[in-house]
Amino acid sequence: MAELPLHKVLLDESEMPTQWYNIVPDLPSPPPPPLHPGTKQPAGPEDFLPLFPPALIEQEVSTERYIDIPEAVQDIYRLWRPSPLYRAYRLEQALGTPARIYYKYEGVSPAGSHKTNTSVPQAYYNLQAGIRKLTTETGAGQWGTALAFACSLFDMECEVWQVGASYDLKPDRRTMMEVFGARVHRSPSTLTEAGRRLLAGRPDHPGSLGIAISEAVEVAAPDPEVRYALGSVLNHVLLHQTIIGEEALLQFAKIGQTPDLIIGCTGGGSNFGGLAFPFLREKLAGRISPVIRAVEPTSCPSLTRGVYAYDYGDTAGLTPLMKMHTLGHDFIPDPIHAGGLRYHGMSPLLSHIYQLGLIEALAVPQTECFAAALQFARTEGIVPAPEPTHALAACIREALACKESGEEKVILSVLSGHGHLDLSSYRAYLSGGMTDEQVTNDRFAPSLADLPQIPD
Amino acid sequence: MAELPLHKVLLDESEMPTQWYNIVPDLPSPPPPPLHPGTKQPAGPEDFLPLFPPALIEQEVSTERYIDIPEAVQDIYRLWRPSPLYRAYRLEQALGTPARIYYKYEGVSPAGSHKTNTSVPQAYYNLQAGIRKLTTETGAGQWGTALAFACSLFDMECEVWQVGASYDLKPDRRTMMEVFGARVHRSPSTLTEAGRRLLAGRPDHPGSLGIAISEAVEVAAPDPEVRYALGSVLNHVLLHQTIIGEEALLQFAKIGQTPDLIIGCTGGGSNFGGLAFPFLREKLAGRISPVIRAVEPTSCPSLTRGVYAYDYGDTAGLTPLMKMHTLGHDFIPDPIHAGGLRYHGMSPLLSHIYQLGLIEALAVPQTECFAAALQFARTEGIVPAPEPTHALAACIREALACKESGEEKVILSVLSGHGHLDLSSYRAYLSGGMTDEQVTNDRFAPSLADLPQIPD
Repeated sequence: MAELPLHKVLLDESEMPTQWYNIVPDLPSPPPPPLHPGTKQPAGPEDFLPLFPPALIEQEVSTERYIDIPEAVQDIYRLWRPSPLYRAYRLEQALGTPARIYYKYEGVSPAGSHKTNTSVPQAYYNLQAGIRKLTTETGAGQWGTALAFACSLFDMECEVWQVGASYDLKPDRRTMMEVFGARVHRSPSTLTEAGRRLLAGRPDHPGSLGIAISEAVEVAAPDPEVRYALGSVLNHVLLHQTIIGEEALLQFAKIGQTPDLIIGCTGGGSNFGGLAFPFLREKLAGRISPVIRAVEPTSCPSLTRGVYAYDYGDTAGLTPLMKMHTLGHDFIPDPIHAGGLRYHGMSPLLSHIYQLGLIEALAVPQTECFAAALQFARTEGIVPAPEPTHALAACIREALACKESGEEKVILSVLSGHGHLDLSSYRAYLSGGMTDEQVTNDRFAPSLADLPQIPD
Repeated sequence: MAELPLHKVLLDESEMPTQWYNIVPDLPSPPPPPLHPGTKQPAGPEDFLPLFPPALIEQEVSTERYIDIPEAVQDIYRLWRPSPLYRAYRLEQALGTPARIYYKYEGVSPAGSHKTNTSVPQAYYNLQAGIRKLTTETGAGQWGTALAFACSLFDMECEVWQVGASYDLKPDRRTMMEVFGARVHRSPSTLTEAGRRLLAGRPDHPGSLGIAISEAVEVAAPDPEVRYALGSVLNHVLLHQTIIGEEALLQFAKIGQTPDLIIGCTGGGSNFGGLAFPFLREKLAGRISPVIRAVEPTSCPSLTRGVYAYDYGDTAGLTPLMKMHTLGHDFIPDPIHAGGLRYHGMSPLLSHIYQLGLIEALAVPQTECFAAALQFARTEGIVPAPEPTHALAACIREALACKESGEEKVILSVLSGHGHLDLSSYRAYLSGGMTDEQVTNDRFAPSLADLPQIPD
């Protein structure tokens, strides 16, 4: 019998990396500091204490290259990690491409996405600091589910503000968070000042990630036993996600290959950074030379069409100011189906790295993404979440270019989650009811005058 | 650093079994033959030809102990197989039991359940026989999704009759089948004689598995290019599922343990048989001695309260007669949430094995099952499909008995699928809107006079 092709490169639990990688010390220059929203002076660790426990703040500003993963976190990671690295043979065959397409599959986590890589350590460090309850926002629901899961395992309370449009459209998302014991509110809610103000103007307000963040922060900040948890954007979140790239490096070593091109989708930037940073370390050290490409939706194109400037992380202006690629903190994106990519800003660390020219960026319209998703599901079997379909669409573009050129490129992507709770967006696509009209509007680049003014 | 406990026992793709196990030649007596529905004489292979391709009919009546898995099927299995064997440490700790609870997790398949273990070979053998289209029924939707997935990978057409109540309640299930390219109809439908007759009496008829089978069979039988595929009950289906138990045997050998108790849920019997048969082979050979226990819902208790008699597999009486534990082919179970367990009969092979005293059976009410599911999700992280929560509830009963007795029993179960598309039933449970009232009715045991009369 001929040798069958190997579909999955697996690692044993004992091979799981035991440290996260912090890219900051390896960059040619450090990222600009966050600023206090009142004084607009560089924010110190103490400015973050009302929101985050000391251990996470230390990680946020750390210049250590490697940070140990606590044993209790490793133990929970091992419920699903190391995650498999797949070779997409059937997709390659369907495309007729000489390219080799690999994807790291993070949908194997119990909550269904890469978000558990950071929700578990965030819950752990909060518990260590004596915190008994976490608040957060969620858009598509992947982050809220991941935090509810983590809190459940540490026996902590979890309260989630879910973006109104998503709350109305996806009752199953809410139920899954409740299965993990969380309390879920539609945002904007009457529970916060920020929410009440918006509801007064529009009782059926569809909400946004920025608004939901304002609400979760407003509830957490004044209560010493409650803290807030953010699912993307911040340095410590991207740090926790580097386990994806560290595992992928080990898996590529096992098969004796190196990627020529690394592709990930970006909303806040965490799954992309988590995959890319360990490979970027190797590239900066001159050991490999992959092209690294971020893919965002044309309807929320912070990297490709936003400005690089200091802006708030939330709509109400409660968070520190961060220098990032932003569409403006009051930007409300059109209701695209990839809710996890509907954020006005980009991770400041990733923005800085983009500004340094170390990564590329590309925007893709959603109908192309869903066409890619269908082709992927019908060849590889996995139904992807709407967010990573952006990366899949970019992989397929590249694989078809290789078909033209004859190049045998090795492409690596991350399939950040499954789409089992996002089937309503597939229904919209299959029924022909999905369009790309939002691409035509021209309201993306905010005027610098509209952004918070920073003294020199 | 102390050694962390191993959560998953993994096998490499190269360690995946390459044969299915047929238990028939190892039984003390062969199961009674199926009968032709017209003549009521033993049915020959030719009686099945309008429905199934020759290779599957051969497997249905085979007395070979081992049957090779075709390479093309192995290749697709390896998209998700071998499946992990988990130790449920956190559940054990929450229960405070000295028992060790293991579960084989089949929810890792792209379609989300064990059903792909048989949908892939069924599609393969049909394609080999020149068939271009398969029809089937689906209740909860797991089987329809699995067949749609398999047909998609072999580029075949797939047409699914989904039980009306499930079709109305679960639009996402339909969408997932459509993502894989299937056509999905609400059953009863106007497309068949059987459907039209029922709709005439009740336009909003909620349907049943037996009715949907009648419709799928009616469409397939007269067309030489179309065949029917069944997701449970038949010998060849249970045969394909034995890869679950064969892998579990290898995984237990790796950790040097043997199960004292094997527990699985039963609707048609396939995930239970698939896990149990390889262990039963070892038990019949005197090498191990586990107790083997089937768990069914109190609202559809074919093994524990049905009669053992010849009955039809479908409502309209189109299928061959099979000797099995049955509640009567016109039994319409109450709408319990575990749609995959709402079948009036039990696999004839499993019924025979139960009659021989080789396995035990137990019925569990659904609220106990959902309570078990919540405890499982909040400790192990995985949200189970409603069907295997029956097995989980029985595992927890046993683990709590071990807590009383101090016994360190090794319990093995199969978690046959995830519940990501079944969250509406969790919503019903969490809202307090789920009851066990159907337990009180007394309509289970059909009178033998109501069943098809078989001449001696």
